[in-house]
Amino acid sequence: MGLVVQKYGGSSVADAEGIKRVAKRIVEAKKQGHQVVVVVSAMGDTTDELIDLAREVTPVASGREFDMLLTAGERISMALLAMAIKSLGHEAQSFTGSQAGVITDSVHNKARIIDVTPGRIRTALEAGNIAIVAGFQGVSQDSKDITTLGRGGSDTTAVALAAALEAEVCEIYTDVDGVFTADPRVVPKARKIDWISAEDMLELASSGSKVLLHRCVEYARRYHIPIHVRSSFSSLPGTWVSNEPRGEQPMEQALISGVAHDTSEAKVTIVGVPDKPGEAAAIFRAIADAEINIDMVVQNVSAAATGLTDISFTLPTTDGPKAIEALEKQQAGIGFEALRYDDQIAKISLVGAGMKTNPGVTATFFEALSDAGVNIELISTSEIRISVVTRQDDVQAAVRAVHSAFGLDSESEEAVVYGGTGR
Amino acid sequence: MGLVVQKYGGSSVADAEGIKRVAKRIVEAKKQGHQVVVVVSAMGDTTDELIDLAREVTPVASGREFDMLLTAGERISMALLAMAIKSLGHEAQSFTGSQAGVITDSVHNKARIIDVTPGRIRTALEAGNIAIVAGFQGVSQDSKDITTLGRGGSDTTAVALAAALEAEVCEIYTDVDGVFTADPRVVPKARKIDWISAEDMLELASSGSKVLLHRCVEYARRYHIPIHVRSSFSSLPGTWVSNEPRGEQPMEQALISGVAHDTSEAKVTIVGVPDKPGEAAAIFRAIADAEINIDMVVQNVSAAATGLTDISFTLPTTDGPKAIEALEKQQAGIGFEALRYDDQIAKISLVGAGMKTNPGVTATFFEALSDAGVNIELISTSEIRISVVTRQDDVQAAVRAVHSAFGLDSESEEAVVYGGTGR
Repeated sequence: MGLVVQKYGGSSVADAEGIKRVAKRIVEAKKQGHQVVVVVSAMGDTTDELIDLAREVTPVASGREFDMLLTAGERISMALLAMAIKSLGHEAQSFTGSQAGVITDSVHNKARIIDVTPGRIRTALEAGNIAIVAGFQGVSQDSKDITTLGRGGSDTTAVALAAALEAEVCEIYTDVDGVFTADPRVVPKARKIDWISAEDMLELASSGSKVLLHRCVEYARRYHIPIHVRSSFSSLPGTWVSNEPRGEQPMEQALISGVAHDTSEAKVTIVGVPDKPGEAAAIFRAIADAEINIDMVVQNVSAAATGLTDISFTLPTTDGPKAIEALEKQQAGIGFEALRYDDQIAKISLVGAGMKTNPGVTATFFEALSDAGVNIELISTSEIRISVVTRQDDVQAAVRAVHSAFGLDSESEEAVVYGGTGR
Repeated sequence: MGLVVQKYGGSSVADAEGIKRVAKRIVEAKKQGHQVVVVVSAMGDTTDELIDLAREVTPVASGREFDMLLTAGERISMALLAMAIKSLGHEAQSFTGSQAGVITDSVHNKARIIDVTPGRIRTALEAGNIAIVAGFQGVSQDSKDITTLGRGGSDTTAVALAAALEAEVCEIYTDVDGVFTADPRVVPKARKIDWISAEDMLELASSGSKVLLHRCVEYARRYHIPIHVRSSFSSLPGTWVSNEPRGEQPMEQALISGVAHDTSEAKVTIVGVPDKPGEAAAIFRAIADAEINIDMVVQNVSAAATGLTDISFTLPTTDGPKAIEALEKQQAGIGFEALRYDDQIAKISLVGAGMKTNPGVTATFFEALSDAGVNIELISTSEIRISVVTRQDDVQAAVRAVHSAFGLDSESEEAVVYGGTGR
């Protein structure tokens, strides 16, 4: 029996009942003989409530003090969780990110982990205690100020601690049963995946699957930490994510891991761009200077008659207005004809390492969409992923058609969704 | 212009509006050229809400984890306050007790300050910033665990920081205009005291006045820190508490500083105690072993016929049942006849260094009570205080009569009370 890192999201510890349920679960793992380190998020809506408070006080809530504020959330949940474990007769100690040795850079609100020095955690474990660690937070190497890790930070804390402590597994407890072949709210016949490669999981995460964030999977892949995503509301096994298939898991890799969709992006089309060197560079420099991350980029061949081409790209809808403003400023310099902006799009992605060696996948994918009457607006592919942009109204039909076409539908409608996700 | 420490209680920062109001006040002090260090309590009812949460999770909320939980409260208020100051165009940095160098012993939930090493505060001040410090919390010298200072802890933090930083003054902002000659809710004609000696303030605090706690005044007296108690809701000067009268304050010391009352105590009478050496000692050893602090102790001369005496003492009502239990266990050993317990009492105290040299004070005090028809049950005096125990029903009449008899009544009913007190 080795060391296990368990991470519980905000929805798992939303109230006193949730905290007591999670405490029992932790004690079970301890009783099985594991050394247990628990990473916990803030309770339920605590973080949002703190953000609301900050906005009441100041129009610009950011930086050092915003981090100081938000980290109060995990302080509450971790102390309560330690108390709940104690009341079950087991010793538990809670640690802030700083006390747990989560060392970060100084970029407040979205710090990156530089190092993890979990000396106090090791001491607690050696004393036979359960260690509870605040997710999402750390301390900056230079200024010793409190930092937060940004979106998905608690998952990253868990994986980073698992790596530093050489844990057997990092269990991510959430409010769904694991990673599914598609979003069960859209595809009732979606199947829970028993094992998925870290590589495929990365593609799913960047294609709109919200169960695990890209950053956390990337960290786990780099440090060879197996992740077990599972529900805190049931004792069923969830989904294993690892570089290598695990002994007890099916050895064969599926052709297709799953279908992801994303309706949070918008599409910008720059019409009538002179087809000559440097034009695309000028466009994307303008976007980069506005600190906007773009996703898909598609350029068609130019029409021979005009020497003009169209360039389209997708980006988070929230960055849309900023992108349009940045491009309009450059219109004269770059010399394009017009800008089109469309936030009624959806991206549908098919992910699977198996497609590398199977030339029929693309054809089957497009046929499925066509049969479902879904029009394709943009196409972009990688080695193990095909993504298309469609109308947002078509997203359900598209995802279901593709899911079905690749034989991913389960016999029954087994998916259980509890709603809400942790930080 | 020197260094000023300002402390704001929970009622002053109960919501976003309160925080913004306090921020303006802090910025005013900064604009006047002061270096400003602010100690802040948790917002409004935050601490009580956290305690309620803990009780939902475990029947025994105490120790290390309880401190970890409670300290989340100040973390929220101090970060919000720093943000509010920034939005007014001034630089502010918040610091936890640990970051501010508040070093304590390891007694969780009621730690005592051992040392204050405010290096980071000094650095912040030298950079021209306003420093915001979490009240009520510290870090233990031995285990580096987070501790809390117990009741009145934030005032103690403020005075301790003022001492370590050699501040000009420690301003305690609260929801009343200062220290009054009596509780204005009981005596509408009570007057605000402009200056009171630390010695008299200590007696008032231990006699039921709740504006400042004994511990904080004791600390200020020892380190010669002048305290200025004032309202955060008005800009009027409040009450100065210091060893020596201040230049701008009246030099003469009043005969009587004020009348305090306390209805939180109960009276235990041990009837028929054999009047011989060792009996009283046995009784109070039994009480001490039960970890109960007692207040007044009165023993009458014994009746010659029986050789028996009665011993009475007062103690916090909350400790009453524990004391009775402890004494009942010892009844046979000590050999007293009976125990009487009475929690319907009030203690009324007259405080003033002037009474040392004025023999008429005691007589005037008792006459005033007699004229008001108030019966005296116990009497206890110190050099600068007379306390009596009366029926609780008589407390208002007694306090008003005494206040009036010593010429403390103001011309008008000036007292303003906003209700609620901070931690």
